[in-house]
Amino acid sequence: MADLIDLRSDTVTRPTAAMRQAMASAEVGDDVYGEDPTVQALEVEIAAMFGHEAALFCPSGSMANQIALQLLVPPGSELLCDADAHVVTYEMGAAAAYGGVTSRTWPAVGAQLDPDVIAGMVRPDGYWAVPTRAIAVEQTHNRGGGGVIPLDSLRELRRVADTGQLALHCDGARIWHAHVADGVPLATYGALFDTLSVCLSKGLGAPVGSLVVGAADRIERGRVIRKRMGGGMRQAGILAAAGRHALAHHIGRLAADHAKAARLAEAVAPFGVLATTVRTNIVPLDLTKAPLDAPTLAAAARAEGVLISVLGPRTARLVTHLDVTDSQVARAAAILTHIFRR
Amino acid sequence: MADLIDLRSDTVTRPTAAMRQAMASAEVGDDVYGEDPTVQALEVEIAAMFGHEAALFCPSGSMANQIALQLLVPPGSELLCDADAHVVTYEMGAAAAYGGVTSRTWPAVGAQLDPDVIAGMVRPDGYWAVPTRAIAVEQTHNRGGGGVIPLDSLRELRRVADTGQLALHCDGARIWHAHVADGVPLATYGALFDTLSVCLSKGLGAPVGSLVVGAADRIERGRVIRKRMGGGMRQAGILAAAGRHALAHHIGRLAADHAKAARLAEAVAPFGVLATTVRTNIVPLDLTKAPLDAPTLAAAARAEGVLISVLGPRTARLVTHLDVTDSQVARAAAILTHIFRR
Amino acid sequence: MADLIDLRSDTVTRPTAAMRQAMASAEVGDDVYGEDPTVQALEVEIAAMFGHEAALFCPSGSMANQIALQLLVPPGSELLCDADAHVVTYEMGAAAAYGGVTSRTWPAVGAQLDPDVIAGMVRPDGYWAVPTRAIAVEQTHNRGGGGVIPLDSLRELRRVADTGQLALHCDGARIWHAHVADGVPLATYGALFDTLSVCLSKGLGAPVGSLVVGAADRIERGRVIRKRMGGGMRQAGILAAAGRHALAHHIGRLAADHAKAARLAEAVAPFGVLATTVRTNIVPLDLTKAPLDAPTLAAAARAEGVLISVLGPRTARLVTHLDVTDSQVARAAAILTHIFRR
Amino acid sequence: MADLIDLRSDTVTRPTAAMRQAMASAEVGDDVYGEDPTVQALEVEIAAMFGHEAALFCPSGSMANQIALQLLVPPGSELLCDADAHVVTYEMGAAAAYGGVTSRTWPAVGAQLDPDVIAGMVRPDGYWAVPTRAIAVEQTHNRGGGGVIPLDSLRELRRVADTGQLALHCDGARIWHAHVADGVPLATYGALFDTLSVCLSKGLGAPVGSLVVGAADRIERGRVIRKRMGGGMRQAGILAAAGRHALAHHIGRLAADHAKAARLAEAVAPFGVLATTVRTNIVPLDLTKAPLDAPTLAAAARAEGVLISVLGPRTARLVTHLDVTDSQVARAAAILTHIFRR
Repeated sequence: MADLIDLRSDTVTRPTAAMRQAMASAEVGDDVYGEDPTVQALEVEIAAMFGHEAALFCPSGSMANQIALQLLVPPGSELLCDADAHVVTYEMGAAAAYGGVTSRTWPAVGAQLDPDVIAGMVRPDGYWAVPTRAIAVEQTHNRGGGGVIPLDSLRELRRVADTGQLALHCDGARIWHAHVADGVPLATYGALFDTLSVCLSKGLGAPVGSLVVGAADRIERGRVIRKRMGGGMRQAGILAAAGRHALAHHIGRLAADHAKAARLAEAVAPFGVLATTVRTNIVPLDLTKAPLDAPTLAAAARAEGVLISVLGPRTARLVTHLDVTDSQVARAAAILTHIFRR
Repeated sequence: MADLIDLRSDTVTRPTAAMRQAMASAEVGDDVYGEDPTVQALEVEIAAMFGHEAALFCPSGSMANQIALQLLVPPGSELLCDADAHVVTYEMGAAAAYGGVTSRTWPAVGAQLDPDVIAGMVRPDGYWAVPTRAIAVEQTHNRGGGGVIPLDSLRELRRVADTGQLALHCDGARIWHAHVADGVPLATYGALFDTLSVCLSKGLGAPVGSLVVGAADRIERGRVIRKRMGGGMRQAGILAAAGRHALAHHIGRLAADHAKAARLAEAVAPFGVLATTVRTNIVPLDLTKAPLDAPTLAAAARAEGVLISVLGPRTARLVTHLDVTDSQVARAAAILTHIFRR
Repeated sequence: MADLIDLRSDTVTRPTAAMRQAMASAEVGDDVYGEDPTVQALEVEIAAMFGHEAALFCPSGSMANQIALQLLVPPGSELLCDADAHVVTYEMGAAAAYGGVTSRTWPAVGAQLDPDVIAGMVRPDGYWAVPTRAIAVEQTHNRGGGGVIPLDSLRELRRVADTGQLALHCDGARIWHAHVADGVPLATYGALFDTLSVCLSKGLGAPVGSLVVGAADRIERGRVIRKRMGGGMRQAGILAAAGRHALAHHIGRLAADHAKAARLAEAVAPFGVLATTVRTNIVPLDLTKAPLDAPTLAAAARAEGVLISVLGPRTARLVTHLDVTDSQVARAAAILTHIFRR
Repeated sequence: MADLIDLRSDTVTRPTAAMRQAMASAEVGDDVYGEDPTVQALEVEIAAMFGHEAALFCPSGSMANQIALQLLVPPGSELLCDADAHVVTYEMGAAAAYGGVTSRTWPAVGAQLDPDVIAGMVRPDGYWAVPTRAIAVEQTHNRGGGGVIPLDSLRELRRVADTGQLALHCDGARIWHAHVADGVPLATYGALFDTLSVCLSKGLGAPVGSLVVGAADRIERGRVIRKRMGGGMRQAGILAAAGRHALAHHIGRLAADHAKAARLAEAVAPFGVLATTVRTNIVPLDLTKAPLDAPTLAAAARAEGVLISVLGPRTARLVTHLDVTDSQVARAAAILTHIFRR
């Protein structure tokens, strides 16, 4: 699909030449034995970035999230999250199916979460009702259009969690984008959460890999869970090397992806299809009042060489990333404008 | 607690003399072998009442609900329900812990559910996201103050379920009260649901027992699940006899319990603490604006011989039932009035 | 089946008149609220009999066992037991399906277990392999022909458990029979196990009920698990009253059931079909070398009014109990002799 | 540990220069979207080798096995396997914890399995007992000393499976070694099993990756399970390229690893510590009658620069692989001889 403009997701990026070089020359060992130096360096680096004691390399963001949830919420206990959270949408029910975690959800509001509403949902420990044990948020929020949860909301949510003696998890697959968009240091985010997952293979452009971040004893137990989940990889340093390269070179450049998304948003805004203000690299389209539905839009765009994601009958998504150039964005903007004008 | 006025729940009723007699003379057999005639008669009777093929006797409403959910929702698939539903509140996370059922919840609205909101939450089958497989409602709605979901809402919800090829379950622990309050035939309710659970030991006054109702092949598989859940009982006809007695004698009289609840509601209404209109045997109190919180109210009432349930810091509940006389209700009303006046 | 001689199982017994009277006059309360005095008296009584702190009333032996296993073995950890143990045979995989308990089994040897073999199977805690957390035995052993595990074997097994820091559970559904057969005090058995399940509705003749016995804090957590399993029953004192009656009147008389079984064993022994020496109320038949298989034998016996259990193509079982009279045993012995002679 | 002779496992191999080159130049895409051409080529290639319709790339052998088990055995159903099988030993109880799979085990016999014993363990479908649904074998058998299950045994086992309508799974992490040792074509093995897992990162020397092999519809469902397990990787073609290189270049050379193991076996045999005949690349040591235990042996060897695995107090293991040269083997043999002589 070399000639296509792929705006479906930032997961489609292919490793750069420099990243391939980093992989080719990576020093490796058996990470199941705890002997891969590149994996270890990555884990130390990520833990330090977020001000936590430890981190654990995983084959996917789903696994990183699920390890965190299994660490924080005993079977039969409760997780609260957004009704559109990745953890209850795209992870195939793993929290319930594998962790026995029961969930109640607040209405899908993306980044606009209301800590008071969440506080009102918390149920105490005890014999009568399911005890709430953790709250999960997603930063930035994928189905929430790449929205950035304000730092103040997160701080208030931390107080809610503390009051209820709950753990707070951040699905930080795109926390890098929040960091760049709001200028909040990663360690500031890190300090607010008991566990975070972060992803190297979305905006950062590495081929494979996510990490779960937290206290040393938790991560130690997480290592056993990772083995149970089938996430123990041997010479994973090959992948970790790409991740280290991404950390060194691909965080700052996310601002450029945000600018590209803003340009796309500007192009479609006049047609009344922008679902929310665009803050990061995601442009969510709400086609409820548009003359064409999401599959039709996607087909029309594809016919012109632009790939977009269909999230629902009237919901679509454009995502900018490392492998979309400015000129491609300009062309995509023109194509979409043209389609909406018809 | 013979001299106390127990308004905590309709689960506290003790079997009547006639019911005890029915148990004492019950014909029994080994129900795990499928040979208890009284259990079988009860199952046939209940199935017929709701117009379904079969029913299965269970030791509790929680087990009846959970068997239904395990039948309707494969592990890793999704159930939609009210955020205050019994199935995600009081059943200790069993749907997730034992059934691997993941849940998303619409905001707690009790009987005022909005089929359109629910329709908007349904996710299709497929590879990407967790497929929704069932919707559960609760009739009457316990934490929703004994509210009765209007028949029209249920019919609309059935259409939502059909559109999405979803199963529809009714936690009908107190469906008898809805039947009496709205005059809707039980079979009319039955026709709307794939499975229902009904309870004999709440308003109907039997000591133990609930049933799950549905198609014959489902109930046949439910029998295996019941064994797995530890619900296979031997000479359960002793309990089923009480249930049959309750069906014969205690449904019609629920109108009296509703009248008692109305009287209590009338007494507390002037103090602005009635959470919703009282339709059945539950009087929900919202003490948000009251001068005393729920534990304080409960303690004050207890000091005067009236027991009520505390559901939250500012939420309490009064329930009328077989073992509360009219004069007790009058006395309780006076006591509560007195407390609120202070 | 009043005119049939039912030797299928001791679960088929029907409550006696005196037991029915005990149920009819039982004092009851809401046991989910912890207010049923008869259930509480039964729990105290059973705990005391086995020298443990607490006990919990359950609707079935399967639930009592499964609560114990969920208490002793965390998800992903290991239970060791006999390959023919009730917990991995007749409980529909609940330990794995609901508790996440993985099991390895020693070859089916019934009561003849070898503590050294078991010791050799134990795996230590750690990162590499599944840690063994508990060993379960069954006393008497159902599929092991009602065999009684010698006290010395149990003591040695306790040492194995202590060495490996493992918990030891006894599925004591028929521990009463072991107590009567070997004259070992129940408290002596109790002292060897971390948890036991005991059953009131098999040899003891109550209609419904088993208990799990153990330390107070364990049983407290077990109460939550029981609710999750759907085992919370309201006025369960009706059933507990039958259990208390059984404890008072039906333990000593088990010797008579053993004598009846011995008589049946004597009758079939000459035909070379006795699987093991008969010690209690179970007569296991091994028809490997017999001229007829188990279904054929069962059909022939049924034609003469005798019901027996088919456990496998060449395995059958006779069980004596409260509802089989001496004269019925004599008649059954004659009928079986006659069939084998053909 | 460049200067150490690492005989702990064949998982410790590091990618060769040619393999690194293959990774560096791999064509990749987003495999979660089904668009990674190298992963697809590998899956097609592996499926063809075993004569199956499809294969699925996974981050580990544990995940490949667990996906297969979740496909073959519904929750609450039974798997039969060797008591020392990888699936119940080193996968942290995942089959039970995540799949709800209950297991009974035949005594640990490694490659010497007896199909009649296994046939005797099978339980039929039905209401009473847990139905057996699958049998798993391990070829070669890791804890069984790298033993090769004879083709005739497997054929007989296939008949046992067919008779009981059971699925048959092969944990073929080292099936390449069996193929080389016994000269049995991979497709001949493939034809005997419903599913197989095969590993690229053990004897074949790739850094990461295993595949589950089977019918197209099963593998399609396996793709959803892989996502649930957290095994969906994006540009996994980097890893698949190493795997393809390994398939092309590293199967035939396993004979050399077997020869090296034979040489080590020859060295230690005179001391009576060889647990079984060495057939492949694993040399299992049974130190029951040796003057030193396994930790002591491992420490002594390590002091001389040789790393070996301790599997139990008196059990150790040497494994040869791509990264152990002939001269290192000679030196290791001398060192071990020296240690045993002391």
